[in-house]
Amino acid sequence: MTVTASRGFRAGGVAAGLKASGRRDVALVVNDGPSDVAAAVFTTNRCKANPVLWSEQVMAARSAKAVVLNSGGANCYTGPYGFQTTRASAELVAERIGVEATDVVVCSTGLIGEQLHRDKLLAGIETVVRELSDVGGPAAAEAIMTTDTRSKQVVRQGTGYTVGGMAKGAGMLAPALATMLVVLTTDADIDATTADRALREATRVTFDRLDSDGCMSTNDTVLLMCSGASGATPDADEFTALLTDACHDLAQQLLGDAEGSEHDITIEVVNAATEDDALAVGRAIARSNLFKTAVYGKDPNWGRILAAVGTTEAAFEPGALDVAFNGVWICRGGEPGEPRDAVDLSDRAVTVTVDLKAGRESATIWTNDLTHAYVHENSAYST
Amino acid sequence: MTVTASRGFRAGGVAAGLKASGRRDVALVVNDGPSDVAAAVFTTNRCKANPVLWSEQVMAARSAKAVVLNSGGANCYTGPYGFQTTRASAELVAERIGVEATDVVVCSTGLIGEQLHRDKLLAGIETVVRELSDVGGPAAAEAIMTTDTRSKQVVRQGTGYTVGGMAKGAGMLAPALATMLVVLTTDADIDATTADRALREATRVTFDRLDSDGCMSTNDTVLLMCSGASGATPDADEFTALLTDACHDLAQQLLGDAEGSEHDITIEVVNAATEDDALAVGRAIARSNLFKTAVYGKDPNWGRILAAVGTTEAAFEPGALDVAFNGVWICRGGEPGEPRDAVDLSDRAVTVTVDLKAGRESATIWTNDLTHAYVHENSAYST
Repeated sequence: MTVTASRGFRAGGVAAGLKASGRRDVALVVNDGPSDVAAAVFTTNRCKANPVLWSEQVMAARSAKAVVLNSGGANCYTGPYGFQTTRASAELVAERIGVEATDVVVCSTGLIGEQLHRDKLLAGIETVVRELSDVGGPAAAEAIMTTDTRSKQVVRQGTGYTVGGMAKGAGMLAPALATMLVVLTTDADIDATTADRALREATRVTFDRLDSDGCMSTNDTVLLMCSGASGATPDADEFTALLTDACHDLAQQLLGDAEGSEHDITIEVVNAATEDDALAVGRAIARSNLFKTAVYGKDPNWGRILAAVGTTEAAFEPGALDVAFNGVWICRGGEPGEPRDAVDLSDRAVTVTVDLKAGRESATIWTNDLTHAYVHENSAYST
Repeated sequence: MTVTASRGFRAGGVAAGLKASGRRDVALVVNDGPSDVAAAVFTTNRCKANPVLWSEQVMAARSAKAVVLNSGGANCYTGPYGFQTTRASAELVAERIGVEATDVVVCSTGLIGEQLHRDKLLAGIETVVRELSDVGGPAAAEAIMTTDTRSKQVVRQGTGYTVGGMAKGAGMLAPALATMLVVLTTDADIDATTADRALREATRVTFDRLDSDGCMSTNDTVLLMCSGASGATPDADEFTALLTDACHDLAQQLLGDAEGSEHDITIEVVNAATEDDALAVGRAIARSNLFKTAVYGKDPNWGRILAAVGTTEAAFEPGALDVAFNGVWICRGGEPGEPRDAVDLSDRAVTVTVDLKAGRESATIWTNDLTHAYVHENSAYST
């Protein structure tokens, strides 16, 4: 049920011919209220896609009544004509559901650097408007897939309210978001400030800590829409915790479907002087191609981890570092520790723990291994 | 002739059994003077190998009379015992050639996180001392190879003097050097300050701009030894230019032999506000796995380039960026320009040009594509 699990929302997903495969490629999620509070975070990439440029303007009002999303084209680096396509899609949605264009967030994903087929997109919007329903979440989730092998959906129940969500993303996952579109809905009745704070905190410790291939996208959008239809006004902390839990679930689904990956890698950095230090170390490891290929080869190569740690400015003494693979401390004090043979990397899940022995802070980064399939998919497929 | 092309040097390379293949793995280069001026640059990785820790101390005196190198083991993350192995090898060389241990630079390369076989190394030193000769350069160059498919050597003639060199490196190539060992010799008679300045300038625009896989090594060393045997004292600028030319040649040899690569990619960033901006943009592109896999797939995917440029803080307007592949400007003003079909990426050499339109500075970074063979080599081989 995903985004339509929350009361007050209708959604739909249709095939408009933007994808060569003929699969669903246009999605619409409408918030029927009574509240139209919304919050969003966008890519920090300076080269932003047209729908991001549009949606940032929409979200200045901290409200939204609908979001229209398409796959089959990112509408990125397409200039003024591309921006007009985005605007035209928002205007058509607005006209059909009886709101203002500036109430409509727009998201696009797919190939960048090519014009999106405006006529097909607008025709798809005409269709999806007619198919909107309160069970339309799964169709919408399917319509935003690109190289995803499965749709990503989540539902969480709070006390008297619900959080639902859908996501797409299978590569270009990097800090400050990814080629990632996420729509979260809730029927909780919360104000714009609470919604914004909750979303920023939730994304900070979930999507922002996913670093699949170190490449930052141009189209990332995480949108939270709040209908207030449940009448429940949860405590801000409780709502943040539930939203974070939902985001964590979606983030793990993205990780598990990352292009060509064979391992989901959790990098825990502990006993750092600061959380920023822990994050810097975790990201440096997550971005080491040598580390990522080693995990693909089921090789617990801690030397490549130390080489990555050594590129950071985090507080640590090289001769004090401990490293574990799946709980086996094969590096102690910067030297060989327990035998490498004690590590088994045959499971999909791999946990690397780095003990900096420099303080009490910690952070976790999630990444994937670098595989033949990743190279194949990204050398053969234009995104 | 490489390092022995310069008068005043003897070298040799022998097989000591450190490499499982039984190939040459211990090299020695001796400077017979009359001068013992030397300069060196080392990895900026904070997790340094034992030979780097030793050699940094040696080079505090800005002189060196010999360098002993081994492949088959990096002696990195091997603790005090590993450091003693390094010291023992320097002491043995010193004793046999009649100098002090603190005159002997040590370099190691190979697997990290495992003890180097001290007895085999010392036995190899005994052998190589006996084989030292003024035509021993090629054997030395061969003895420092790891995953290199060919040895790297260079000779340049100045006015009345010579610069010779050898290098090893085939991966982990990243700024601030790489898994790279380079020994340069000259029979020019120059002072320590001139040698140091010349080496820093030469490496700044050559080895430091090679970014093959974004991974910074723990063992990188570039050493210049000056015998003064020619009696010629070149102008500092002329010497720097010749040394830079020699380093450029070696750097291009390293690039051409990078693990699994099928394309040598030159990234030119032009019209930047500052050289640092140009470098930041070039490095961001060189580290984009999506860009590198696209080149492997012969896909001139300029969208992935703009996405990488957008992660930097360099001065530019997103809507002003131009991008060319091999001189074809397929992105103009942040939008599609000339047709992609006009670009042919079938040759090994690929040039990407990014015009930031923000100033008059420029910089060039060299990198490789990301291939199936890279993944294979680095998942199957522990380094």
